[in-house]
Amino acid sequence: MNDQDRVRRPGGRSARVGAQVHQAVTGLINERGYGNFTVGEVAARAGVADSSIYRRWGSLESLLSDVALTRLNAQSPMPDTGSLADDLRTYAAQVAREITGPDGLLLVRLAVALSSDGGQGLRAADELRADRTRQLQSMLDRARDRGERTPDALDVLDHILAPMYIRVLFGMVPLTPEYVDGLVDRLL
Amino acid sequence: MNDQDRVRRPGGRSARVGAQVHQAVTGLINERGYGNFTVGEVAARAGVADSSIYRRWGSLESLLSDVALTRLNAQSPMPDTGSLADDLRTYAAQVAREITGPDGLLLVRLAVALSSDGGQGLRAADELRADRTRQLQSMLDRARDRGERTPDALDVLDHILAPMYIRVLFGMVPLTPEYVDGLVDRLL
Repeated sequence: MNDQDRVRRPGGRSARVGAQVHQAVTGLINERGYGNFTVGEVAARAGVADSSIYRRWGSLESLLSDVALTRLNAQSPMPDTGSLADDLRTYAAQVAREITGPDGLLLVRLAVALSSDGGQGLRAADELRADRTRQLQSMLDRARDRGERTPDALDVLDHILAPMYIRVLFGMVPLTPEYVDGLVDRLL
Repeated sequence: MNDQDRVRRPGGRSARVGAQVHQAVTGLINERGYGNFTVGEVAARAGVADSSIYRRWGSLESLLSDVALTRLNAQSPMPDTGSLADDLRTYAAQVAREITGPDGLLLVRLAVALSSDGGQGLRAADELRADRTRQLQSMLDRARDRGERTPDALDVLDHILAPMYIRVLFGMVPLTPEYVDGLVDRLL
């Protein structure tokens, strides 16, 4: 689902405002980079009042985190194939596709920037990470319940996600399917 | 060796200018972040002419890359202990100390920023990475020559450096000695 679809989707004023605000944030990040715009500028571009944004999200940092999480979840829903190896391969391939795609680095940089500006940004980044970790943990818990040998969520971060992130951040692309599958096989 | 020592070190005008320019760059990055200053501002702070900087470094990007590499080499020289396990543990501990130290994230962010602004920045980042990879490769080659089983340099990047970088970038610190040694042991 792209932003355009989301705008057209029925769901009342609240969903429409949410989509417009998300789209405004993505556009501003693309044009100016994270941190180089204000709530007022997001509001103006989205065609809503500043106060609507503060009421719903509380701060620019929470809004940015919400945008990041929404896009992550839309692009990389956690798979449930019935086997951990297949779940992890599917998940890793999704993440690889997402972070090498047009908005991909944006998301990684947003997460990095949220983590590094302290205060609210740090809390927002913690929430974003906690949310994704919970989803990953559910996938791992399902595998454990099926009796499969299961790594920790932090091992998945360290040995599947981190190498892909760093290679993309350093411009060492593309991430081939062989490379991505290899990271999963090595961990399992 | 800190910048102050380097300034006082004998070695003529060229070494002095180099140290002053490096110090100016570090200060400007700390105050304004990467990308938010010009060669002219570096020159003014260092007390040298713009043309001296262009003659020696060619571009702001090459200068930034040189600063990053000089600091990396000063802070994390490649160890040569006679055993790959000890070399890698020492190296990983140095990197962990450096990236969790006061200038640490600066260097990682500089490398990331150099990689992501395209053109000259990308080439400078490639050189920086190539330089460090050559040093790492020498360490691995020495181990191979001694008959030790030796991972690829890219495996070291993926499974020792990348997890530490990502944890620091995401604010998941400190990196305990147990964690860092564990990354090395797991790879070997």
